[in-house]
Amino acid sequence: MGEPEHIRSTYNDIHNIIRGASDKIASEFKPDMFIAIGGGGFFPARVLRTFLKDSSTKRNIPIQAIGLSLYESLPGTTAEQLGNQVVRTQWLGPDSGKRLLGRRALIVDEVDDSRKTLQYALHELQKDVETELQLLPESERDLQRTKFAVFVVHNKLKPKLGELPPNTPYFVGAEVEDVWLDYPWEAIDIEEHDRRAREDKEKKTDVTVDEHQH
Amino acid sequence: MGEPEHIRSTYNDIHNIIRGASDKIASEFKPDMFIAIGGGGFFPARVLRTFLKDSSTKRNIPIQAIGLSLYESLPGTTAEQLGNQVVRTQWLGPDSGKRLLGRRALIVDEVDDSRKTLQYALHELQKDVETELQLLPESERDLQRTKFAVFVVHNKLKPKLGELPPNTPYFVGAEVEDVWLDYPWEAIDIEEHDRRAREDKEKKTDVTVDEHQH
Repeated sequence: MGEPEHIRSTYNDIHNIIRGASDKIASEFKPDMFIAIGGGGFFPARVLRTFLKDSSTKRNIPIQAIGLSLYESLPGTTAEQLGNQVVRTQWLGPDSGKRLLGRRALIVDEVDDSRKTLQYALHELQKDVETELQLLPESERDLQRTKFAVFVVHNKLKPKLGELPPNTPYFVGAEVEDVWLDYPWEAIDIEEHDRRAREDKEKKTDVTVDEHQH
Repeated sequence: MGEPEHIRSTYNDIHNIIRGASDKIASEFKPDMFIAIGGGGFFPARVLRTFLKDSSTKRNIPIQAIGLSLYESLPGTTAEQLGNQVVRTQWLGPDSGKRLLGRRALIVDEVDDSRKTLQYALHELQKDVETELQLLPESERDLQRTKFAVFVVHNKLKPKLGELPPNTPYFVGAEVEDVWLDYPWEAIDIEEHDRRAREDKEKKTDVTVDEHQH
């Protein structure tokens, strides 16, 4: 029945979804560092910084970037590499663990699809922290252990292939069905994109009205 | 006479400014790598990637991020540090020079204000390249020397304190007077921001009509 379902978000939609999640993140996690997963996490992290200040210093929260790609999307991938599935294209730096020590780091991405990218990011960052913790006297380690949390603009409601470490705080802007998400920064013609996003919303409103009537 | 002049851009304004610059960048520079200066360059780099593909592989152009802050905006700055003025908060990694070798790297930021941040970025990236070139046989160096160019969404027309290396291709989305630039990602209330941006444009149109009539 026609094309597969898409959800089209305008820039202002995304901006307001992030705004809507920010109070909860501020009160429940209080991050003092954002780690944006590029390229999709760049925009959400920058917008989130407008709504959240460092709770102790009241200053802007610094954004660090990491680059990750799923191997599926890279050319010349062998079966063996597919076992790893995620490849780093950029990392925090050679002093990654040192930068993370004692911080409350919020990992930001635009969408949680299979959760494999998030799993990889959390696992690898945690490894850097553990390496660094080993250099500290044992009595200091608990205090200096990094607290991680995750924020995604959209979470797709579907079976996940990756998982997050237990008790990782997880913040979502909006839960969506397993449909195509069309982000505004991927649009060539942004006015056309917005027009179709508006149409989608009107259609949805019609359906809702209809359901109420029957 | 009222508040100082502001230019308010909507997300779609910025999207279209970047779209407008992309053909010229594609034909005159053909980047195969973006270096986004965070946090302001993240969004422009991501949008630019939609409009530009790698001219030889036709694939997405990878975005690498660097973090730079002007010392002026950091607390506890001494006069001596002000001499340096720019501080790195993130870099390409320990293999920065190696990553850059042979590439055509477009450095992306939202605004060229004093030009100090751009000067620092170009200078330091070039240093990394030179260090790496020294490890190559002399005959290969010219071929492997990185080509850098700059893209900014807005260039403020004002005396610049920094300068770019001679012959650095420089691409601008829009030239603006030395006024306050209000970016959408800094807005708390994005609808109010858009409303005021629209009012500004209407005012400007009025003035233009007026000038034509007299």
